[in-house]
Amino acid sequence: MLGFMGEFDLINTFFKRPGRHATLGVGDDCALLPVTPGQQLAISSDMLVEGRHFLSTVNPRLLGHKALAVNLSDLAACGAHPKAFMLALALPQVEPYWLSEFSKGLWELADAHQCDLIGGDTTRGPLNICITVLGEVPAAQALLRSGAKIDDDIYVSGHLGDARLALEIFRGNLSVPEGVFDAARMRMEKPTPRVALGMALRGLATSAADISDGLLGDLKHILDASGVGAEIQTHLAASTMASGAHCQLSAEIQMHLTLAGGDDYELVFTAPVAKRQAIADASALSATPVTRIGKIRASRELLLLNAQGLKVADTFQSFDHFKTP
Amino acid sequence: MLGFMGEFDLINTFFKRPGRHATLGVGDDCALLPVTPGQQLAISSDMLVEGRHFLSTVNPRLLGHKALAVNLSDLAACGAHPKAFMLALALPQVEPYWLSEFSKGLWELADAHQCDLIGGDTTRGPLNICITVLGEVPAAQALLRSGAKIDDDIYVSGHLGDARLALEIFRGNLSVPEGVFDAARMRMEKPTPRVALGMALRGLATSAADISDGLLGDLKHILDASGVGAEIQTHLAASTMASGAHCQLSAEIQMHLTLAGGDDYELVFTAPVAKRQAIADASALSATPVTRIGKIRASRELLLLNAQGLKVADTFQSFDHFKTP
Repeated sequence: MLGFMGEFDLINTFFKRPGRHATLGVGDDCALLPVTPGQQLAISSDMLVEGRHFLSTVNPRLLGHKALAVNLSDLAACGAHPKAFMLALALPQVEPYWLSEFSKGLWELADAHQCDLIGGDTTRGPLNICITVLGEVPAAQALLRSGAKIDDDIYVSGHLGDARLALEIFRGNLSVPEGVFDAARMRMEKPTPRVALGMALRGLATSAADISDGLLGDLKHILDASGVGAEIQTHLAASTMASGAHCQLSAEIQMHLTLAGGDDYELVFTAPVAKRQAIADASALSATPVTRIGKIRASRELLLLNAQGLKVADTFQSFDHFKTP
Repeated sequence: MLGFMGEFDLINTFFKRPGRHATLGVGDDCALLPVTPGQQLAISSDMLVEGRHFLSTVNPRLLGHKALAVNLSDLAACGAHPKAFMLALALPQVEPYWLSEFSKGLWELADAHQCDLIGGDTTRGPLNICITVLGEVPAAQALLRSGAKIDDDIYVSGHLGDARLALEIFRGNLSVPEGVFDAARMRMEKPTPRVALGMALRGLATSAADISDGLLGDLKHILDASGVGAEIQTHLAASTMASGAHCQLSAEIQMHLTLAGGDDYELVFTAPVAKRQAIADASALSATPVTRIGKIRASRELLLLNAQGLKVADTFQSFDHFKTP
């Protein structure tokens, strides 16, 4: 702890760099951001709390990555192009090593997306990281939750359940071979926001959401917002890691991880059947695997079917910060 | 505590209302905000932590007001017109009365400024309120800290030191008659963001900042950013409340409250001598008192002068979240 390091020194040392997008960045009362004509602003905020979203022992560089990644994932779900972000940080004390590593993880991901830190706030308090990210999307082209149409295909990106697999191993509830754990842990600690896929889906997907609270919960948001139902084939969505034979995880556990794992930061989206080739092209263009897992139905329920087309009981509950203890 | 109230119920119950400015508000992955052609976006984030920025016993309705007010004050300092805000909230538990009152205070001020809540985040954790506010300002008309010119007049809005007076009474360090305390407490708990003044100062003020950390500290930000110095007449800036004869506060304490009080949310700004009448008009138009307290000088120091024009020793330190215990 550097008792003599003030708020302004802290900002200057770790969080001030010349920006690309902003007219005026960190250091004035407001950041000023020009918005490209014809574009709408897409905005999302996520707050990460120690003990709830990460443990005090987390690698700060990975935490810096994740804090921004979960926000970029929201932009991805809207098909928006990241431009800038605000960082508000409550710190119990000023630890230069922690801040240096945290800011490195943050900059690495920010640079990869050419997304500038333009302002924010620092204060003393229980560790809390609140990022607000700003992106642009052409007017009327944003991917919304409310656009799913009957008979649309349902897709997910990447693999689901890996992050929850790692969490349950940390909790001592599951065990898997070390290589699988390492890979799952990397997916939990360093998620990949699907920004390129989201942008490639503009004009193709009829709806989209990011999977932060589990596939079923986030798909239900789409169904509710669109006034439709769906059927999904659970085996198609299954995580490749958890489903490996060498993992020896029961089918029920695999399904729980896949359907209600949480912390995936993949996209679930819908698109007309006629767009299957275009979706495959968007997947290739963005170098992001996508899997078709079901269809939108008129009946307002969410049916889970197994590989034999038989109904699977839905005993899965999505992760909700205020329902779990 | 409502153990059964989930995150989405909480948002729907207390924080979802139809918006004016946003295309898409609370409930999708991102909020979508159209930006008026020719306008730049002004953005500011402030994080309020229990025990640091407010006590657990604070009236939640006043806290809702203040959480937004401190952010609107940053927009005011840039001359920006408030449009929308994001609210991220970490709560130790879900208390409907607290949330209902907090949201009332928030809505009252938001409505007064036609500023919409368009999105955010809620999670469990130590009480933390992080608001990011978005406003518009015509391109190249934003008030910056960096524009003060030699011989410019220096002004402050309203009265300084009232909030700190209330805080020191709470701390048991000062005592004043009850009526003075009530008034000072209201200034601490329900500050007035000077949005109308900030907008009226576009094209007039050469620089501006909001006074959140104390006049001297915030004026120094202007001086540093502008590469100039200043002299101010300390008696002109003095708080009317603390300076009342019936308060029996020493001249030194009065000066400390005025110069380094903090939490004032007034504006300090500079303007050319030729604009004195225009500044008076802006003050009248915005129904906000302003006082001329000094001048910008070439010599890069901040001179404090008393009513006799004699130098006052600067023993005042501005409030810094990481320097105070």
